[in-house]
Amino acid sequence: MNKVIFQFEGGGDVTIFAAPGENLLDLARKANVVIDAPCSGNGSCGKCRVQLMSGDLKSRKSLHLDDAAFNDGWRLACGSTVIGDVKVMVPDIASAYKSRMKTADLSSPEEVRIFSELQENLKAVGLKQSSQIKTFSVRMNAPTLDDTMPDNERLSRAVCEATGAGHVIVPFFVLKKLPDLLRDNNFELRCVGELFDGTMELLDLSSNTGTATVCGLAVDIGTTTVSGVLVDLQSGVIIAKGSTGNGQIRFGADVINRIVEQQKTGGVEKLQKSIISETLLPLIDVLCHDAGIPKKRIFRMTVASNTTMNHLLLGINADFLRTEPYIPAFFSLRPILTRSLGIELAPAAKLCIAPNIGSYVGGDITAGTLASMIWNTHSLSMLIDLGTNGEIVFGNSEFLMSCACSAGPAFEGGDISCGMRATQGAIEACSIDRETMDPEMTVIGNIRPVGLCGSGIIDVIAELFRCGIINGKGKFIREGNRIKRDEFGIGSYVLAFPGESASGRQVAINEVDIDNFIRAKGAIFSAVMTLITSLGFTPDMLEHVSVAGGIGSGINIRNAVSIGMFPDLPLEKYAYIGNSSLAGSYAMLSSEDAADKLFDIARSMTYLELSTQPGYMDAFVAACFLPHTDTSLFPSIEVI
Amino acid sequence: MNKVIFQFEGGGDVTIFAAPGENLLDLARKANVVIDAPCSGNGSCGKCRVQLMSGDLKSRKSLHLDDAAFNDGWRLACGSTVIGDVKVMVPDIASAYKSRMKTADLSSPEEVRIFSELQENLKAVGLKQSSQIKTFSVRMNAPTLDDTMPDNERLSRAVCEATGAGHVIVPFFVLKKLPDLLRDNNFELRCVGELFDGTMELLDLSSNTGTATVCGLAVDIGTTTVSGVLVDLQSGVIIAKGSTGNGQIRFGADVINRIVEQQKTGGVEKLQKSIISETLLPLIDVLCHDAGIPKKRIFRMTVASNTTMNHLLLGINADFLRTEPYIPAFFSLRPILTRSLGIELAPAAKLCIAPNIGSYVGGDITAGTLASMIWNTHSLSMLIDLGTNGEIVFGNSEFLMSCACSAGPAFEGGDISCGMRATQGAIEACSIDRETMDPEMTVIGNIRPVGLCGSGIIDVIAELFRCGIINGKGKFIREGNRIKRDEFGIGSYVLAFPGESASGRQVAINEVDIDNFIRAKGAIFSAVMTLITSLGFTPDMLEHVSVAGGIGSGINIRNAVSIGMFPDLPLEKYAYIGNSSLAGSYAMLSSEDAADKLFDIARSMTYLELSTQPGYMDAFVAACFLPHTDTSLFPSIEVI
Repeated sequence: MNKVIFQFEGGGDVTIFAAPGENLLDLARKANVVIDAPCSGNGSCGKCRVQLMSGDLKSRKSLHLDDAAFNDGWRLACGSTVIGDVKVMVPDIASAYKSRMKTADLSSPEEVRIFSELQENLKAVGLKQSSQIKTFSVRMNAPTLDDTMPDNERLSRAVCEATGAGHVIVPFFVLKKLPDLLRDNNFELRCVGELFDGTMELLDLSSNTGTATVCGLAVDIGTTTVSGVLVDLQSGVIIAKGSTGNGQIRFGADVINRIVEQQKTGGVEKLQKSIISETLLPLIDVLCHDAGIPKKRIFRMTVASNTTMNHLLLGINADFLRTEPYIPAFFSLRPILTRSLGIELAPAAKLCIAPNIGSYVGGDITAGTLASMIWNTHSLSMLIDLGTNGEIVFGNSEFLMSCACSAGPAFEGGDISCGMRATQGAIEACSIDRETMDPEMTVIGNIRPVGLCGSGIIDVIAELFRCGIINGKGKFIREGNRIKRDEFGIGSYVLAFPGESASGRQVAINEVDIDNFIRAKGAIFSAVMTLITSLGFTPDMLEHVSVAGGIGSGINIRNAVSIGMFPDLPLEKYAYIGNSSLAGSYAMLSSEDAADKLFDIARSMTYLELSTQPGYMDAFVAACFLPHTDTSLFPSIEVI
Repeated sequence: MNKVIFQFEGGGDVTIFAAPGENLLDLARKANVVIDAPCSGNGSCGKCRVQLMSGDLKSRKSLHLDDAAFNDGWRLACGSTVIGDVKVMVPDIASAYKSRMKTADLSSPEEVRIFSELQENLKAVGLKQSSQIKTFSVRMNAPTLDDTMPDNERLSRAVCEATGAGHVIVPFFVLKKLPDLLRDNNFELRCVGELFDGTMELLDLSSNTGTATVCGLAVDIGTTTVSGVLVDLQSGVIIAKGSTGNGQIRFGADVINRIVEQQKTGGVEKLQKSIISETLLPLIDVLCHDAGIPKKRIFRMTVASNTTMNHLLLGINADFLRTEPYIPAFFSLRPILTRSLGIELAPAAKLCIAPNIGSYVGGDITAGTLASMIWNTHSLSMLIDLGTNGEIVFGNSEFLMSCACSAGPAFEGGDISCGMRATQGAIEACSIDRETMDPEMTVIGNIRPVGLCGSGIIDVIAELFRCGIINGKGKFIREGNRIKRDEFGIGSYVLAFPGESASGRQVAINEVDIDNFIRAKGAIFSAVMTLITSLGFTPDMLEHVSVAGGIGSGINIRNAVSIGMFPDLPLEKYAYIGNSSLAGSYAMLSSEDAADKLFDIARSMTYLELSTQPGYMDAFVAACFLPHTDTSLFPSIEVI
């Protein structure tokens, strides 16, 4: 065995022992060392750079490393194998995450469609766009010897007259600048205030000249990706939109690893710093820069995130979420000053967190439920959110029931040998010719393929099954030039030979990948069935299914049904609604009515713990088959 | 003329030109350079040390300077005169102020009498000692798989059950430590919370073992002296008491100079720092040390101070208090988090400020009025507060009217050649033998006299007048071995010849001192008369007069009446009530009922601006005579 030391750029190291020939990126993952590798080790992204400190590796050359870099000891971890004791430096991932920052081009209607449609939907049911945060001007008489009212009372009286508020709160930070501001502006000021129960709390005072946007920030903190929109609170219009990687990913891809990391010395601060300083603050900077708005014009922030993410964000011990009896510190919270988290926006800016309803159904799901509008219909409806985990909400205007299932990261391309997220180079759709068994693929960015994202995997498995290339257990049962078997007899299907791919390495899917995916889709389907049948319903009674999450808009519902991931319903009952968590966060920010509704939804939603639900395990095992062991559940699917 | 440079230890310098022979301490005062000199330049305290940097002075030796210090260039400013160009270093006064910190021996009943009497008085009228800040224990069931309520709801429910509160607020800083605290303490905790309108806001959580005092801090911020008491909020008992100099004094002895200083660059922060970091924080440390209580057990702080002091404390521009039309930023304020001022007590500790009613009648007077109990009697009553300024409140349970007069610092020994505050060595009482004209004096600390404090000055002037040594204008009209005249013919009376004093310098009072004091007492008397007569009353209708302030408990009311400082009423109508501002601050802290009453008092109190009051100037001029130009106002005073 060889000794492999990963030394972190920011300090600290991890040692692991490896057999000669082991891949360095795989080793890093075993050792829980996060090396940035968005292409999942296909060699295409060039981001998994490490630098030799001592010893050597057997490394492939790469277009991403020029001679100078190679001579300086830089190697791609995915293209390197162990040949002896070695020590490598792992760059700090934060800079890599910043480079993954993306902002949206708002001139494309598609980027804001989900938000404007949601605003229309909410308005249609009487939840109007309207923030309690208002901007208005006041003009006062200057004091005289006969009118010696102190400044704060003079201002309060003027605010009551201008807004109809019954009472005014002048916070200390406003009071401090009041005497000079009044006299420098001839007793005429612009105010920003929040009206609540007839009381106006002033949030800002300024000279009454020019224009001044009053903004809010809605964020979705996913385990993998963090997205945000900057919103003009007066109109509800989105003025910037962007996303970035969750900087916590270096401490583990899933929530459990991050909770474990939080328990270590300094862990609470470390996890909090990585989501705040290294993720949210750079994202806010970029959004503000895009919109041309200073941060101090952001007066409200909303966050939708799963229960673990919101505990880690607030610096609250999340350990009791992962150990029986799985108790969160909170479901819902009063707004918190953003600056108490080190997020410096307007001085009085508060953070509102979408309420959790359990340890495994968090604010991302309650916010997503709000955005899905399923709470507003008499028809039986369902929200299926395919994120790093899978969560399902079932119900209508009468009831709402939710559950979470451990589907794993397969829908985001994780646990799949050539899996990747739905970015440049990902095969997002695919069909296979029944005769030639050749694939026809749609690749994001219209380049040669790099790997498979979630929607592509669904298509490939559905097509392999439809063509009779694999059987119901996901095993290869046909031969052909694209069908290979390795030394252990494990079959695989080649989507792109080395010469056809962007990376020069073949893109394939093997029986292990297919098995992983079948387990993931089985977890979703059995959760859906358990939720429906636990209340005595049957799946055919479902009128509407909203599919949300990172699986991407390319998802082919017909194929997802044909592999037994979703119930066999008419396709028009399905809709892909994108990032419903961000949409719900936006609704909570831009409409006080919607925010109230969100808390109503959370209060009324019940949680079904699948692990203690009789029959769930049986349902799961039965669903780990293409499309299902009980084919009567999939009457429209022709099984060869 | 010689050039004299005062260079400050903390940086900066002031230059002034002086004739040879000028006294350095006098020069410093002219130049507005504050050198610590609590004995007012009698050479007795040894605190006015400066260090020669270049040039030389003609200096007396002093017992306060040993040879080593003298050789290092240290001199007493009061004992040094100019003999050429010279540059001296003036030490930072903050350390001197810290050394002036005094704590009270609470085993002496006299030290707490004012507070316990006040508590009795308030209780007698139904304002009971009771803080909204409570401590209580809660015990919860540990969560199970069948009882998965989140921690904050579990706690809130237990708090409602334990206290009868209808609603509970769990602040963010409490929530952060909640999960571990619950599990480390087997779901049994001690809470501190504040109940308001049926809502309990938690202020602290801890293990339910041992005892834990819940404290409050009541402070009086005087222009010259800052006093405070640490209070057990559950019982109202005082557990520590102390006072110190107001560190702002280096920026001027009166409020006007401090406001001017605040206008300079960095002035707001400088004045705020000197009252907070250099005065309040050391005082709090000493009080906590005395009581054996950590600062984080202080959950509430109250401050009574004049309008300028509370503006400077909060870092609010006070410039508009001193310029027409004299507008404060506020009269009353919502409580402010103490930590927003850099005063770190319990995390949620709030500061409540006694309300001002005008630019020159502040929270010290409203709090003093509360403590005086004059708002609770049908009889016409008056509060006379003799501080660095003089403020008067007149009224009863039906009305309250106040005014402020520029009496100057004479009552605290200022503007008097041998004046000093009521500390060690001060002559606090005096009688003069009509025949021998020799004085018989009571000196604080029973030592040889150093100087005269306010009560001593009243006695001396009253006795000089009674003995016919001075006339109604304060001029010397008898001769004797204790009566001297200088080269300008200005008469003086020697209380102690050099050999009889503690300092080796004579203690005397001269015609300039007497004139200053007559103007001060005239300001008080004319203000009293104007206030009474403005409402159509006459002074004989007064049933009760409370005298408060730094003049000291040694005040001889009979003598104060006989010099025409107070109206000629039966002596039993007068009472000296000590520091009524601190007492009111204490009442506001320890009784929510009293705090409510204080705000009622402030709302109902009217302010009479003397400078615009017809007849006030005439009344003042008429009162600048012993006892008064209209002797019919003083029928009981025999005028020779």
